[in-house]
Amino acid sequence: MPALDYPPPLQRMIAQIRSLPGLGPRSAERLVLWLMQDGGRIEPLIDSLEELSARVQACDQCGFFIERDHECVLCESPKRNHRLICVVEQAADVLRLERSGAFSGLYHVLGGKLSPLDNITPEDLRIDPLMERVKILGVEEVILAVGSDVEGEATASYLGDMLRLEGIAVSRLAQGMPAGGGLDHVDELTLYQALNGRRRV
Amino acid sequence: MPALDYPPPLQRMIAQIRSLPGLGPRSAERLVLWLMQDGGRIEPLIDSLEELSARVQACDQCGFFIERDHECVLCESPKRNHRLICVVEQAADVLRLERSGAFSGLYHVLGGKLSPLDNITPEDLRIDPLMERVKILGVEEVILAVGSDVEGEATASYLGDMLRLEGIAVSRLAQGMPAGGGLDHVDELTLYQALNGRRRV
Repeated sequence: MPALDYPPPLQRMIAQIRSLPGLGPRSAERLVLWLMQDGGRIEPLIDSLEELSARVQACDQCGFFIERDHECVLCESPKRNHRLICVVEQAADVLRLERSGAFSGLYHVLGGKLSPLDNITPEDLRIDPLMERVKILGVEEVILAVGSDVEGEATASYLGDMLRLEGIAVSRLAQGMPAGGGLDHVDELTLYQALNGRRRV
Repeated sequence: MPALDYPPPLQRMIAQIRSLPGLGPRSAERLVLWLMQDGGRIEPLIDSLEELSARVQACDQCGFFIERDHECVLCESPKRNHRLICVVEQAADVLRLERSGAFSGLYHVLGGKLSPLDNITPEDLRIDPLMERVKILGVEEVILAVGSDVEGEATASYLGDMLRLEGIAVSRLAQGMPAGGGLDHVDELTLYQALNGRRRV
């Protein structure tokens, strides 16, 4: 007698949920069993996924999400500075920067960062569309708001070289102390960078 | 100008994923953004959910999962002892007990445990079907394999009273030291119960 297990469709569902980011084998099993309780929990999820798939897409220009057949509130806004582009890794970064209120130019979502170890090369990122936009819009400055980890630094260095060749000013986000934190809350590298980047007051 | 946010269908999807067990606001956002990358990640998920919804259901008898139009490998097995029922909270508990190899009777999934604080009353659990099965099958002993937390104890006490009224032997899982662990690995309550339940060797 083979060992008892869940019916195959349920096993497949657990395996698929487990492959999503942030979910381990136990939480995947718990989630699927929860969905199976009470009958009516799966249908609303399918409906939302279908609506998502049918109605939301990435903007051709900036890569942020738009509703299908709607124009992009960022790219089409006449109030924004179209000569200034901020390059970010993910769509979520656009929201974070918008909430800071410090930026009113255009965005460009790369869709990741260069990472040879994960086989992510320049062709996998939205770099060609960036170079095109820069030319079409006559952009004067590009802010590289990518992470300061190894992959982020590599991506910034690669993009910086390409953009400077086109005669465009390139900048990166300042590195230093986080707002509201004391010296006891930052690591040594951050402190080193905050010292090097010190400003006269 | 209203603050920028994701398109409404994407916001709704994040809210829905966040309502699933084990997922917080950040992991829900990360998961949905991951699904939106590369186009082809949503459709396979919808397909699996539809297959799950169409093909898997709970067995009328024991409450474990079966494929639609298949008979239950547990309830219909002539090799199992039909006079012995093990009551568990969740379908996942059936797998755990089967893997232990220590039980060859029938199972009965309650679908939860009594919890007045969460508004879970006897009517919300599969207690009536249990009492019916016990009579139809002529069950001699019911093992209450529910948890030993407050709600589990309350559930066991409630079920025990009902079953004893019908003249059925009622037992609970032994409590004591886990296999392979020393005294330094168990809490005081477990140690207390292990001492009280000591066996002559």
